[in-house]
Amino acid sequence: MTIQPSLALATLIEGYRRFRENGWTPRRERWAALGEGQAPQIMIIACSDSRVDPAQIFDVDPGEIFVVRNVAAMVPPFETTPGFHGVSAALEFAVQVLKVKEIVVLGHGMCGGCKAALTQELYGTEPGEGGFIANWISLLDKAREPIARELGTKGRVAELAMELAGVKVSIDNLRTFPCVQHKEASGKLRLRGAFFAISDGILHLLDEESGEFTALT
Amino acid sequence: MTIQPSLALATLIEGYRRFRENGWTPRRERWAALGEGQAPQIMIIACSDSRVDPAQIFDVDPGEIFVVRNVAAMVPPFETTPGFHGVSAALEFAVQVLKVKEIVVLGHGMCGGCKAALTQELYGTEPGEGGFIANWISLLDKAREPIARELGTKGRVAELAMELAGVKVSIDNLRTFPCVQHKEASGKLRLRGAFFAISDGILHLLDEESGEFTALT
Amino acid sequence: MTIQPSLALATLIEGYRRFRENGWTPRRERWAALGEGQAPQIMIIACSDSRVDPAQIFDVDPGEIFVVRNVAAMVPPFETTPGFHGVSAALEFAVQVLKVKEIVVLGHGMCGGCKAALTQELYGTEPGEGGFIANWISLLDKAREPIARELGTKGRVAELAMELAGVKVSIDNLRTFPCVQHKEASGKLRLRGAFFAISDGILHLLDEESGEFTALT
Amino acid sequence: MTIQPSLALATLIEGYRRFRENGWTPRRERWAALGEGQAPQIMIIACSDSRVDPAQIFDVDPGEIFVVRNVAAMVPPFETTPGFHGVSAALEFAVQVLKVKEIVVLGHGMCGGCKAALTQELYGTEPGEGGFIANWISLLDKAREPIARELGTKGRVAELAMELAGVKVSIDNLRTFPCVQHKEASGKLRLRGAFFAISDGILHLLDEESGEFTALT
Repeated sequence: MTIQPSLALATLIEGYRRFRENGWTPRRERWAALGEGQAPQIMIIACSDSRVDPAQIFDVDPGEIFVVRNVAAMVPPFETTPGFHGVSAALEFAVQVLKVKEIVVLGHGMCGGCKAALTQELYGTEPGEGGFIANWISLLDKAREPIARELGTKGRVAELAMELAGVKVSIDNLRTFPCVQHKEASGKLRLRGAFFAISDGILHLLDEESGEFTALT
Repeated sequence: MTIQPSLALATLIEGYRRFRENGWTPRRERWAALGEGQAPQIMIIACSDSRVDPAQIFDVDPGEIFVVRNVAAMVPPFETTPGFHGVSAALEFAVQVLKVKEIVVLGHGMCGGCKAALTQELYGTEPGEGGFIANWISLLDKAREPIARELGTKGRVAELAMELAGVKVSIDNLRTFPCVQHKEASGKLRLRGAFFAISDGILHLLDEESGEFTALT
Repeated sequence: MTIQPSLALATLIEGYRRFRENGWTPRRERWAALGEGQAPQIMIIACSDSRVDPAQIFDVDPGEIFVVRNVAAMVPPFETTPGFHGVSAALEFAVQVLKVKEIVVLGHGMCGGCKAALTQELYGTEPGEGGFIANWISLLDKAREPIARELGTKGRVAELAMELAGVKVSIDNLRTFPCVQHKEASGKLRLRGAFFAISDGILHLLDEESGEFTALT
Repeated sequence: MTIQPSLALATLIEGYRRFRENGWTPRRERWAALGEGQAPQIMIIACSDSRVDPAQIFDVDPGEIFVVRNVAAMVPPFETTPGFHGVSAALEFAVQVLKVKEIVVLGHGMCGGCKAALTQELYGTEPGEGGFIANWISLLDKAREPIARELGTKGRVAELAMELAGVKVSIDNLRTFPCVQHKEASGKLRLRGAFFAISDGILHLLDEESGEFTALT
């Protein structure tokens, strides 16, 4: 092979070799069957953050979760304007093609995207220099307003409030999609909010009735 | 807890409990340190497909890879039009904020998104009924044209050609971002194409010189 | 192997591999001995329902329980009409050939068969379209009548009454078999009613004197 | 409780207590979710024999397999004659109500039912004295004929041939059900033959093309 592996790539290749030995070979029938097609029952929308891999946190087998990852686990609302709507395409694929039964929005602690939404420090920067992030997290603007007013824009208390609010924003936006509305009303689809607090490793689930996140014990 | 767990959610909760016992508790120092911040050196752009989880395929530790996942592992080109540019925001975060050294685009076999790009069967459907997918995978239209002409639009030969071409499209589009151009030119960033063939579990790496994907042995 | 494993089959094969490693290999002497013949002391008649596996609920070793499973844990009465009498054949095998000392009829909560007996919603459908189920659960018709009259045909109260009554019907029908009558009279065989309430995981035993089911504590 | 536990019942109660501690409590969310309903993807038809519990051999979780067990894992053909058709009712429930994707017929070594089919030693006995068994295993009569002629009616060679042939008889009979025919033809249902050789604990899968059973390695 003429590919010059960097240290980073070498790390990935080593990991792939461990996967071949421990993750693939002992389960080759499952992988062969997965070659025929996927049938996940769950879609997870999570952050791109390197610390919150849903497959690790939920210890799932290959084939079990259909995953979207972007900055801050955002779902833009249903919009038919021009442009590429990546989350909408994935949502459509999961709900209409794969017919998943559950969508989990997974927020997390120490989220850089939520922090930037709160401080608005990147607002006004050029695309490529911070402007894309600023534009993306403006999805949180409306939820940010009462938090900034009451808790300020700095410190863990305000940040945590922003992170938890972000999960609710994505769930609300999911419900702007007609196909989600119909399937949720008929009991074919459930939406869940979850939050992973990185440093203590505890998962919380959103109780939509009370609006509270409860730690799983 | 007043949350009524479905069977799908119960499966996730059980997986989380295994993670707590086997993945978190024995590594609590690492997790506590990760609570301070992330410093991944690698960004991976992969498909939402349930069978191609990068953290599983590369057997990485938490904190090592910053991950974007969408239908067909697509990267739209640099565009400053209105609308939410989710991949651009994530790219900007990875390259400008986290300063990753490597970006890997990971395609895979039996990709539903690539297949739909090839057959164009969803073209003309309404948003929410397939239209979002159709619009998203139109990113592959230009690469599709010679494949459809020479290999047709059905069967594994044409599909595989589309899947491999998709990886190259995303790498080409990454290079339309000025920040990627600058960092690659100065040796601070490398782009890689990779392809995971699900059923035989083999990873291939793109040799950009020859344009060929080579199996890792 | 030329067999194409589906995902479902792959799951079974993986489970079998765990069984080989954890359930068979460490107990190979027991298995070798079981190869010589079985000598269970207990017969269990349970529902086909995927949630009420007797070997799991009673955590038995291989070779300990002889098990019949069908819709709603039914025992048809002693009848010598033409046709295939599957439960009668199994009962005869257990009592006359294996000489078990105990027969347990295990009912359970949320039983689809009992519910269908109560609502009679499948009555009148064609064989293959619901007619076989309707015919089979007509075994509960007589026990259903007072329940439907007093508690109605919908809701958990009536359903639970039907589920508990179903256990008693099967025990009554067991006693229509002459061989059961003789062995029970001479103390060589005991009949037991039991009920597993799935969601709280509690087992109840029937006290035939009072007719009540008592939770095991 | 006024129930007098025999030694056999005491064994079951002890096992239930272990299940409560190790099988129920650590998985209480799963059990609570299962309380809402079952959604198994697999139906298994197995023998009542105490040594071949499918949940043990395939190490499945509660809720994964819908199980019919009777003498010799038999499926009578589609028949609309009077009488109680227990297997047909269970098949209808699995295929039409639960919409399972896979049906596995699991035969096994040292099967008392198959042996009795081969020797016909119970033929002519009264119902209750062996007549029910004789009648039930007459389902194997046609498959027995060439075996008895070529291999005789005694010894492991002939018995094994009868056991393997029994699996094929049940699969053939499954295909006499119109709903099975339709679903198999449209790819919504797969039928599998399997065989568990008790003393060496090895599972074999039927390759329907060649008619051979192949050991899983």
